[in-house]
Amino acid sequence: MSIAPTVLDRIQRVTQAPKVALHEPTFGGNELKYVTECIQTGWVSSVGEYVNRFERELAAYTGAAHAVVVSNGTSGLQVTLELVGVRRDDEVLVPALSFVATANAVRHCGAWPHFVDSDVCTLGIDVAKLEAYLRDIAEQRNDGCYNRRTGRRIAAVVPMHTFGHPVDMPALVELAERHRLEIVEDAAESLGSWIGDRHTGTFGRCAMLSFNGNKIVTTGGGGAIITNDGALAKRAKHVTTTAKQPHPWAFFHDEVAYNFRMPNLNAAMGCAQLERIGQFLEAKRLLASRYVDAFRDVPEVSMFLERPGTQANYWLQTLLLAPEVAAQRDEILATTNAAGQMTRPVWELLYTLPMYSSCERMATPVADDLAQRVVNLPSSPQLMPGVV
Amino acid sequence: MSIAPTVLDRIQRVTQAPKVALHEPTFGGNELKYVTECIQTGWVSSVGEYVNRFERELAAYTGAAHAVVVSNGTSGLQVTLELVGVRRDDEVLVPALSFVATANAVRHCGAWPHFVDSDVCTLGIDVAKLEAYLRDIAEQRNDGCYNRRTGRRIAAVVPMHTFGHPVDMPALVELAERHRLEIVEDAAESLGSWIGDRHTGTFGRCAMLSFNGNKIVTTGGGGAIITNDGALAKRAKHVTTTAKQPHPWAFFHDEVAYNFRMPNLNAAMGCAQLERIGQFLEAKRLLASRYVDAFRDVPEVSMFLERPGTQANYWLQTLLLAPEVAAQRDEILATTNAAGQMTRPVWELLYTLPMYSSCERMATPVADDLAQRVVNLPSSPQLMPGVV
Ligand SMILES: Cc1ncc(COP(=O)(O)O)c(C=O)c1O
Ligand SMILES: Cc1ncc(COP(=O)(O)O)c(C=O)c1O
Repeated sequence: MSIAPTVLDRIQRVTQAPKVALHEPTFGGNELKYVTECIQTGWVSSVGEYVNRFERELAAYTGAAHAVVVSNGTSGLQVTLELVGVRRDDEVLVPALSFVATANAVRHCGAWPHFVDSDVCTLGIDVAKLEAYLRDIAEQRNDGCYNRRTGRRIAAVVPMHTFGHPVDMPALVELAERHRLEIVEDAAESLGSWIGDRHTGTFGRCAMLSFNGNKIVTTGGGGAIITNDGALAKRAKHVTTTAKQPHPWAFFHDEVAYNFRMPNLNAAMGCAQLERIGQFLEAKRLLASRYVDAFRDVPEVSMFLERPGTQANYWLQTLLLAPEVAAQRDEILATTNAAGQMTRPVWELLYTLPMYSSCERMATPVADDLAQRVVNLPSSPQLMPGVV
Repeated sequence: MSIAPTVLDRIQRVTQAPKVALHEPTFGGNELKYVTECIQTGWVSSVGEYVNRFERELAAYTGAAHAVVVSNGTSGLQVTLELVGVRRDDEVLVPALSFVATANAVRHCGAWPHFVDSDVCTLGIDVAKLEAYLRDIAEQRNDGCYNRRTGRRIAAVVPMHTFGHPVDMPALVELAERHRLEIVEDAAESLGSWIGDRHTGTFGRCAMLSFNGNKIVTTGGGGAIITNDGALAKRAKHVTTTAKQPHPWAFFHDEVAYNFRMPNLNAAMGCAQLERIGQFLEAKRLLASRYVDAFRDVPEVSMFLERPGTQANYWLQTLLLAPEVAAQRDEILATTNAAGQMTRPVWELLYTLPMYSSCERMATPVADDLAQRVVNLPSSPQLMPGVV
């Protein structure tokens, strides 16, 4: 029997609106005020007080020593991978279950994604399984960890905190030390997610955040690099801003570099959004509990909830279909979307995309299974109007 | 005898202000209105009506069949080079006299800049000299033009329209056909510059524009690709927006691609700025004539003016020092900047930068000479308050 009508009904009970997006930003704070100030003072471009302020406030919020804002998360990930030493034809361990940008950033460095299975408890990299896999396929050489099969160096691992649910970072940090891998966290989705009292993105050498329009805090488009490594932060700023040396007039640039700047206009919006992250988090947490209540009498589905000891930002609300109704996923998506309640499956697994189909990977039964069973539900904070 | 005090005096006579930047944007039109609309409707991110409108209006203004907006000019140049077929370890002919981004974009494709001398009449590539040089160093093979010395393919040439002064494109187009080179125009500085009735950027296969904060029209940060080639425009849109295939819910991406999107927020500002380009051009033209008048009695310097048959946008006002006072350049820069009248030399020649010092190049006596003699003067359109 189809559960699609029931799923639709329960979503509608929570959203109480005829037409609902998956995630829409909300700008009821100082966004307009700060952006107006940029336009009225003329400071809209890549140098400006909001750029500095947004960097300071991101560092303060996440507890990272440094933040460097960039044009978006994808570019931020490319740069951080390069800065931790990923080189052409290295391999980088990446979850099979992620947005395509995680793998694209690896290719933008000239390196190759190497796909890893998921942990059903975190939706992120399965650390124990990765450990067993590396014991099997990898060996230590002078300059790092090598894939015995391909002869390529495995330079880094990129844990991605899916929908804001933290990867088991303490375990991954130990693994990375044992195998001499750099960790760059793809924290695009996890601003406001914590493990104990440490923010996601502060466990690896560095991390990238995204402020794309669909994220918990948006700058229209944008991203940031966060790190506790002062030298790395300095290099990140340098290579994302054309590597120009300070001089009253001369244009002297000292290395091949990027224009990955975030304009002050966008940083202004980011400052205003960040002021409201507490509200956004509260609304998303309340929304999760509403969905839990609504689906309590539907045994074929369950809400994916934060693990003990972690705090998820509940950026995207995640319904898991039981295996016996996984085959109904597309029907559920069709029914809910047709009725104006926007839902989404998780991404196509990266190794199934044509440009990544011949990349190295471990067997990924858990990711394969999750890919059939995840349905993201309407997640905008303004669905909880008492809070936002 | 030092001419620095005289130069300062003449600049002050024109600007009539105690403290003047090199180029500042001005937002007296619909900028705030359109940006406010984005914030109030929630459409700030990478999909939105202002993105489509800015693309349509850029195409209409330049006469190019298509425009695709991107996150900035550097990224736009990287993508266009890749799209016309520049591959790893190819060489790309680039003026020695340009902003560092022109060469960086070539390296971002994995190719190598190969530096070319300037024409003293255009400040851009000297086409006749390039012709003689290619006859000397290049040969045709099956798949294109090769540098005999390095054995590398010379895949493309990137004319850059310096400060808005058009390169001799008709001659370059003929040369490129003869030698089977693709042309990608770096039109970062030349929105509003024409050769006859054709806009710069419409002579090659495609071109890149920049809307950085210092450009004639700004989006805070941003750029565009313009082209008459419909297939190339379609590919440009696809690869700058993660190569996602249209589908009501599935995330299927069909090639390695970028997030080089321009947010709707920034495109909104671009639409408002573009409405005013006529005024900006008029102000800059008037400013040029004011400087001509002011410097008429200073025989050691001359204003660099548009060639017959072309219309320059006069984005940056350009003073040329006579050879006998070239040695005074730094003194002129120091005097004027100390007095609050911001002036700038031209960029350090690209082959003098450490990361490009071992790249291929022809002898560049004209660029070497110009690099000592160019001084850019305050150029903001609002210096002509009657016009803007
Ligand atoms: C997991 C993940 N990685 C990378 C990105 C890329 O970030 P951006 O869109 O800012 O380039 C995103 C978001 O789009 C994401 O969700
Ligand atoms: C000649 C030239 N090329 C490339 C660029 C790069 O454009 P953007 O700053 O938008 O990346 C600029 C402007 O900064 C430029 O002046």
